[in-house]
Amino acid sequence: MARIVMKFGGTSMAGVERIRSVAARVKREVAAGNQVAVVVSAMAGETDRLVNFCREASSLYDPREYDVVVASGEQVTSGLLAIALQAIGVPARSWLGWQLPVRTSDAFARARIEEIDTHAIDAALAAGEVAVIPGFQGVAANNRIATLGRGGSDTSAVAVAAAMKADRCDIYTDVDGVYTTDPRIVPRARKLRQVTYEEMLELASVGAKVLQTRSVGLAMKEGVRVQVLSSFTAHDAPMADTLPGTMIVGEEEIEDLERQLITGIAHDKNEAKITLTAVADKPGSVAAIFEPLAAASINVDMIIQNIAHQTGSTDVTFTVPAADLARSIEVLNQARAAIGFSELVHDTRVAKISVVGVGMRSHAGVASTMFSTLGARGINILAISTSEIKVSVLIHEDETELAVRLLHTAYGLDAEDAA
Amino acid sequence: MARIVMKFGGTSMAGVERIRSVAARVKREVAAGNQVAVVVSAMAGETDRLVNFCREASSLYDPREYDVVVASGEQVTSGLLAIALQAIGVPARSWLGWQLPVRTSDAFARARIEEIDTHAIDAALAAGEVAVIPGFQGVAANNRIATLGRGGSDTSAVAVAAAMKADRCDIYTDVDGVYTTDPRIVPRARKLRQVTYEEMLELASVGAKVLQTRSVGLAMKEGVRVQVLSSFTAHDAPMADTLPGTMIVGEEEIEDLERQLITGIAHDKNEAKITLTAVADKPGSVAAIFEPLAAASINVDMIIQNIAHQTGSTDVTFTVPAADLARSIEVLNQARAAIGFSELVHDTRVAKISVVGVGMRSHAGVASTMFSTLGARGINILAISTSEIKVSVLIHEDETELAVRLLHTAYGLDAEDAA
Repeated sequence: MARIVMKFGGTSMAGVERIRSVAARVKREVAAGNQVAVVVSAMAGETDRLVNFCREASSLYDPREYDVVVASGEQVTSGLLAIALQAIGVPARSWLGWQLPVRTSDAFARARIEEIDTHAIDAALAAGEVAVIPGFQGVAANNRIATLGRGGSDTSAVAVAAAMKADRCDIYTDVDGVYTTDPRIVPRARKLRQVTYEEMLELASVGAKVLQTRSVGLAMKEGVRVQVLSSFTAHDAPMADTLPGTMIVGEEEIEDLERQLITGIAHDKNEAKITLTAVADKPGSVAAIFEPLAAASINVDMIIQNIAHQTGSTDVTFTVPAADLARSIEVLNQARAAIGFSELVHDTRVAKISVVGVGMRSHAGVASTMFSTLGARGINILAISTSEIKVSVLIHEDETELAVRLLHTAYGLDAEDAA
Repeated sequence: MARIVMKFGGTSMAGVERIRSVAARVKREVAAGNQVAVVVSAMAGETDRLVNFCREASSLYDPREYDVVVASGEQVTSGLLAIALQAIGVPARSWLGWQLPVRTSDAFARARIEEIDTHAIDAALAAGEVAVIPGFQGVAANNRIATLGRGGSDTSAVAVAAAMKADRCDIYTDVDGVYTTDPRIVPRARKLRQVTYEEMLELASVGAKVLQTRSVGLAMKEGVRVQVLSSFTAHDAPMADTLPGTMIVGEEEIEDLERQLITGIAHDKNEAKITLTAVADKPGSVAAIFEPLAAASINVDMIIQNIAHQTGSTDVTFTVPAADLARSIEVLNQARAAIGFSELVHDTRVAKISVVGVGMRSHAGVASTMFSTLGARGINILAISTSEIKVSVLIHEDETELAVRLLHTAYGLDAEDAA
């Protein structure tokens, strides 16, 4: 017998027919002798509908009232799933955020889970009942509903799994696992059987949007074994089990057989490149650029300081999220006197390509393989950044697909039997 | 300064644009120096949508989970109205049923309000804040959401008004008040300035569906002064005040000038007539008919026992709600041996016409005016029932409109200046 958290996203909950399929899948886990808690998202599209109501009511809405409105989406699906489970003979009840309770900070609309009281869940599971828990919601100290911010249901699921000491947290999604790269770009991409938290964090943060980054960070911190698997693979195969997905685990759990130098290749087109020309080449001038951006909560990623001009000035290039470009320009222009640059040039037609793998810690040559592979095909590298388990390069957007395919082959990731 | 409860139905809350209009109307009451609590329904159509989800999930749904699902409709509108009020400078917050709390019985899906804790409302109103309260919902002793049954928001509003000792409970509806009869049938129907609780109960129970009957009963019990008025009359007239509606008050508040013999005329086509022929004319035979119907919770209204046949048997005619006809037939056929009737004849093409007025207590001749007015035009009376303030007759459905018009004139209710 295992304790399992199963989490279903909005696509899985989109309509009563799909909620019935989810109930059938939950029943299989219960029939296998497991204790099951289920965390659910709102029906696909519902949260958008509710958010739009709030925006229409006021562009400056009170986040506490926004939370009252948007938390209703998961309330509805948790009640419906409990009904659908009971209808097929599985004892179940819904536990809203304020009922358990799921205690959160009072940062409404972007709250953090602080503590989950599991007394009620433990008692329910011990009595053979499935606990259905709406994701994305909790209750703040002042007894008001608080939501975790968009995509928060993954985080809810991991937090519930940690609190109830679950053996596994199964996240059912639109995809059937984590791949070596985007299969739409590389048909020979392989599904990974295992990936470490650190790798998943790097892959998630650079555009492989399978899991919300926050939930992976929490899983790593709490040691929750997370499995990503598809809601749909077994949909038309009545008695068949779900295909195994990708397990996200600690590095110590990874089997050596499985270990490769590089785990995956990610790409991200949501970056913007900014270059400030003729910045005075003197102490403090770089700080004058990045301090006001940090104060405005804008995450600067890659930075290159070009070699100094004859004139004693230098060009500084860096990237920011494309969504923050307009605000970045505003902030930099306000700081222009302090920085002392000549021109601000920006470009959103860039892409960041990253190779990720815990294996590269012990192997030199990962970066040079990357540079030479891209260089051989004339792909120009605009910027470089590295971490312990990642090398990223910035290239022109149009070359994204070509670069990903070249690197996927160069690092030996192509599947042997795929088309 | 007065304490006022304002209640808005689903049509008034149907979309953010209308919620903004509601906010503007609330602001006028606040600007006039009043302390205001607002009770809201779900957006028109939303409760039906949620109920259908539950039915689709299981025909035998758990009412506790049904309540989790359907209570979300009012949760959404209360949050949105709070946002819309804040947007026009009116401090406001939503108070969900479990937050106040509104304590209910544990008869889920048809709970009764037991107690409303007004500490939070009192503090909010004293601080100049509008309290926005979702109608239809509360929380049972086991900390689970309970709803009051369809149309329960009127009852919520009256209960809130009673608990907070409000000076008035204004119910905004699709109509602008209570009329002497249905204005679609009698264009010269007059809007009543005042009506007593008892009259309103009789009018509501016989088809003048302005307020939920339960809410009128509660208002009478608690002495809450209820005003029915339109959400829409002042809609296109920006600075104009709402037209006065109809006040529902205790008899002692009715001004003598206003007092008429008959207050209004109601009609109800949702009755079915059942006749059992050749019932044995002996003690106990009538009880054998009505006891099994009562046991099945079927409300029998009008009853006539025809004169005995030569054979020592009699025909018994009575009415039941048309919705209960099929079940009534089943119950009676099961009891056939005990009753000993010959045939069961039924007819749904009947209508009940009622004249209502507290004034008839002290005046004889009300019933005879009714009979002679209808008789003069050849309208056949199939059954009669009376209460202290009401006389009802059952007639053929096709004659409904004619009968209502004739009686409206006969009792002097026609407006003098209307078209």
